[in-house]
Amino acid sequence: MKFCSECAHPVSLQIPPDDNRPRYVCSQCGTIHYQNPKMVIGSIPVWEQDGELRILLCKRAIEPRYGYWTLPAGFMENDETTTEAALRETYEEAGARVELHELFALLNVPQVHQVHMFYRATLRDLDYQAGTESLEVKLFSESEIPWDDIAFPTVGQTLKFFFADLARIRKEGGTFALHTRDVRTPMRQKD
Amino acid sequence: MKFCSECAHPVSLQIPPDDNRPRYVCSQCGTIHYQNPKMVIGSIPVWEQDGELRILLCKRAIEPRYGYWTLPAGFMENDETTTEAALRETYEEAGARVELHELFALLNVPQVHQVHMFYRATLRDLDYQAGTESLEVKLFSESEIPWDDIAFPTVGQTLKFFFADLARIRKEGGTFALHTRDVRTPMRQKD
Repeated sequence: MKFCSECAHPVSLQIPPDDNRPRYVCSQCGTIHYQNPKMVIGSIPVWEQDGELRILLCKRAIEPRYGYWTLPAGFMENDETTTEAALRETYEEAGARVELHELFALLNVPQVHQVHMFYRATLRDLDYQAGTESLEVKLFSESEIPWDDIAFPTVGQTLKFFFADLARIRKEGGTFALHTRDVRTPMRQKD
Repeated sequence: MKFCSECAHPVSLQIPPDDNRPRYVCSQCGTIHYQNPKMVIGSIPVWEQDGELRILLCKRAIEPRYGYWTLPAGFMENDETTTEAALRETYEEAGARVELHELFALLNVPQVHQVHMFYRATLRDLDYQAGTESLEVKLFSESEIPWDDIAFPTVGQTLKFFFADLARIRKEGGTFALHTRDVRTPMRQKD
């Protein structure tokens, strides 16, 4: 940020009165330009048939991480809720209609000023298709997940939490739980 | 937003190529200025003694809702995690050191472009005091909660979820659960 978005005067980094962090401040109109973390919201779309559970992943058609696989997710927009964001991103990136369940993972990524959230979801049908931001959309069973080609560590972590819960539930019963984690590894490095 | 924060040229609302929402776009340098929801993070600081559970509330010394009661909470900052934000806000507003537990409530407030999150917490001691944004900080048992003078509907809702869980746990056992809710009532109206 170089200029005030309200009056076009150059801004400077200053600690405002009654504050303890440097902010971009306009000395002409006085506006303090706060910058805050963004939410990236997505889903874990599941299709279960003949006892086999598979998850829908998208191969990214955009940078960062072009060509790597991800769960459908993207930046939450103003005027929507977290579940609306998850449904929208799942439809935009994977052309998939899902029934959303509980929030499953909340991952802090402070080094890029983001919080990632993933909801469990069930595909309503197999009528999915790659959106403009995806090269390909495909169902993967646990043994087929391309672990070495997952786009972001938060996605790999969420998939690991999911299959660990699934194994526990199949063995002992119980339900899925909310998983929270801070992910401080670089976002473009393999998980 | 009137001017580009990168080059000071006037911006205009346009739907960029490959997008479907109006954004503030700079026709001079091409920057698209995305605007996204912000997170407000706080805690539910609990003190339990002689079988009585009380919750620490702060009387707001700032607008909006000057003079009304709230749980300690505030905007999450860049470079921090959701739990760091909850600890920081609890200390800044209530001068209180807490042990944080699980995320307890996630409330969407789409009409003001916010997501509010509250963590359960236990006060480490009774050495709390009002921060600069609070007039007063005080422990309330359930029957003492000033329900008519709660600052924001998300805070009232979170307190109701908390006491409902507590009643269930005391009666039937079990644990606290994550509560999610969309709160579409005006943020400055009584709950």
